[in-house]
Amino acid sequence: MKIRSQYLQATKSYADHTPEATASILDCSLGVNPYGPPEKALEAIRAFDLGRLGDYPHTHAAHDAIIRYWREFADLSRNNILLSDGSVSALYLINALFANPGAEVLGFMPSFTDMIVNVGMQGMRYTGVAPADADYRENVDAMLDAMNMDTALVYIDNPNNPTGQLLPKEDLLRVLERAKELGVYVLIDEAYGDFVDQSDSALCYQSRFDNLIVLRTFSKGFGLAGLRAGYLVTTPELTGYMNKSSNPYTMNELTREAVASAMSAAGYTSSHGADFARTKQALRENTGHALKLLVTDDRVPICTLKHRETVDLQALLYNEGILTVSGAEFDCMDESCVRLRVPAAGQTERLLQAVRKVDQPA
Amino acid sequence: MKIRSQYLQATKSYADHTPEATASILDCSLGVNPYGPPEKALEAIRAFDLGRLGDYPHTHAAHDAIIRYWREFADLSRNNILLSDGSVSALYLINALFANPGAEVLGFMPSFTDMIVNVGMQGMRYTGVAPADADYRENVDAMLDAMNMDTALVYIDNPNNPTGQLLPKEDLLRVLERAKELGVYVLIDEAYGDFVDQSDSALCYQSRFDNLIVLRTFSKGFGLAGLRAGYLVTTPELTGYMNKSSNPYTMNELTREAVASAMSAAGYTSSHGADFARTKQALRENTGHALKLLVTDDRVPICTLKHRETVDLQALLYNEGILTVSGAEFDCMDESCVRLRVPAAGQTERLLQAVRKVDQPA
Repeated sequence: MKIRSQYLQATKSYADHTPEATASILDCSLGVNPYGPPEKALEAIRAFDLGRLGDYPHTHAAHDAIIRYWREFADLSRNNILLSDGSVSALYLINALFANPGAEVLGFMPSFTDMIVNVGMQGMRYTGVAPADADYRENVDAMLDAMNMDTALVYIDNPNNPTGQLLPKEDLLRVLERAKELGVYVLIDEAYGDFVDQSDSALCYQSRFDNLIVLRTFSKGFGLAGLRAGYLVTTPELTGYMNKSSNPYTMNELTREAVASAMSAAGYTSSHGADFARTKQALRENTGHALKLLVTDDRVPICTLKHRETVDLQALLYNEGILTVSGAEFDCMDESCVRLRVPAAGQTERLLQAVRKVDQPA
Repeated sequence: MKIRSQYLQATKSYADHTPEATASILDCSLGVNPYGPPEKALEAIRAFDLGRLGDYPHTHAAHDAIIRYWREFADLSRNNILLSDGSVSALYLINALFANPGAEVLGFMPSFTDMIVNVGMQGMRYTGVAPADADYRENVDAMLDAMNMDTALVYIDNPNNPTGQLLPKEDLLRVLERAKELGVYVLIDEAYGDFVDQSDSALCYQSRFDNLIVLRTFSKGFGLAGLRAGYLVTTPELTGYMNKSSNPYTMNELTREAVASAMSAAGYTSSHGADFARTKQALRENTGHALKLLVTDDRVPICTLKHRETVDLQALLYNEGILTVSGAEFDCMDESCVRLRVPAAGQTERLLQAVRKVDQPA
């Protein structure tokens, strides 16, 4: 067998293990925007000249829209930006850059599962910093202690997946500063970052830290998961290295126009935050017996529900018509938890009915 | 520096080094279909329900169209197929599967440059089998001699890039059989395969060889380079392994519909073969002094032109308004060669005028 040994081991990805959504099930599993994309993105697709599809993608509408989108917060050039087919592809490209055999990637537990799996697939080891409390709050002091000159990369998904917690900016700064002292790169995965404010982004520190890599996607806040589009921002030096192992033509030509127009829809991604916050508050008010909603940023549509007993919470909610992702898919969680992505406002009552049933005292 | 050392070395990709095409230049560089995509693909895009873009891609139109497309030649199931964002992404995924440090990938010289570069980026070594003659014909006997039990992977781009030569099927069978005896996987990259007959594809041997991986793209014959879509076909075991390190949602939802419809346009990809053959024959008739058209399959739009002197042939042709890819971008070739992709029939005379000028005896 000439296949790398890490491929022969079992792995997990919640994309594989989540039961299929059916018509009678309310799908609260995948981390999409339940309101879908802004109309402007769809207009750009309808207006697209299909004659352009015969050539390899080479126009810069997406790069230039990203630069404009961040101009109040960061001074970016095209060579700070790497487009990717879904941000997860960029994640794997970053890992490949640091994948010396046995190299250490440091991150919080729990975190985006597919990142942890990919670190292992690339022959590195993932060191997870245990949470600070029963709400799985990120333990920044412990991370600072664990970081050392041999750490290849620090990974932080912010807002956190699966809890929807946002790391305070002062903590983010402490990590970036310590990492810079030690010569360690820090990857901030802001897949859910469009649901919070642009001023919450690590991109605000882009000019101060040459050890910073920020990852963004159009799948979540911009509601375009079906298009597979994301990007990373870092130094030209690092994007240059990554270009060497990247598909030379990432993000298709039509998608480039669509995401550029999506970014021009001012305020779209944060416009549903109040809805999500109302639903999360209602979840708090409708639980408290068997179930607890863990600490979360209320603007972010994902959160973690925890059952106080050792039960399969995903199965209990599925029986009530709600599809979630099992906590068993996340390091340091178990099946008494689920990650739930709140639905659009019109479906909230259906969710709450199910949650109330599961929450009933034994 | 915690970055892998292979990233710090210089690399080449002709996507980077080819001068930009301008309005006054006839672009004969990138390997696209100069006639663009079939109308059916564009109809599918226009008819696409944009409401589907909010969810991650999960429908099977592309898988099922691939199964139908090959049903006379191979009995495929969905789990034989891995979709990818451009076939080059699948190529890198395959390399990652075999990328034990120092593992050997064996292939012919010249071959698709980006494959050779990526083998190195992933910490493997590429052994190139020298061509059989001055036409860069593939030396199959030498490849059989070079193959051994330690070979991790054999790579053959067929038709060959940059010559457009098609390996005879009996030679393909000799490679597959010897490799099977030795337990070696063989990757047949049929990026240009849509320009020849389906019966020329290695997929005809899919049921006989469990060591076979076939790679296809929609960028060339199907004229959809701008959409970034390809796929590989191999055993369910291997697609299962590759799924572990693949973006879990490759090929976007709209693209899946477009390529499915493109495949239903019977005969489209081979419908321009007679045009390409006429142009290649005209190239032969309009050269012979300084320039030679190397052996090539006339249905395939790419070919190699060689100047008998030590000149920069790309620059000479560019001065005459023709953009090509320099032979210096390919292993074992030099700048006296170019890869030329023939244009659509309406542009042939412009190409021939330039070629005649460069061909003039000194």
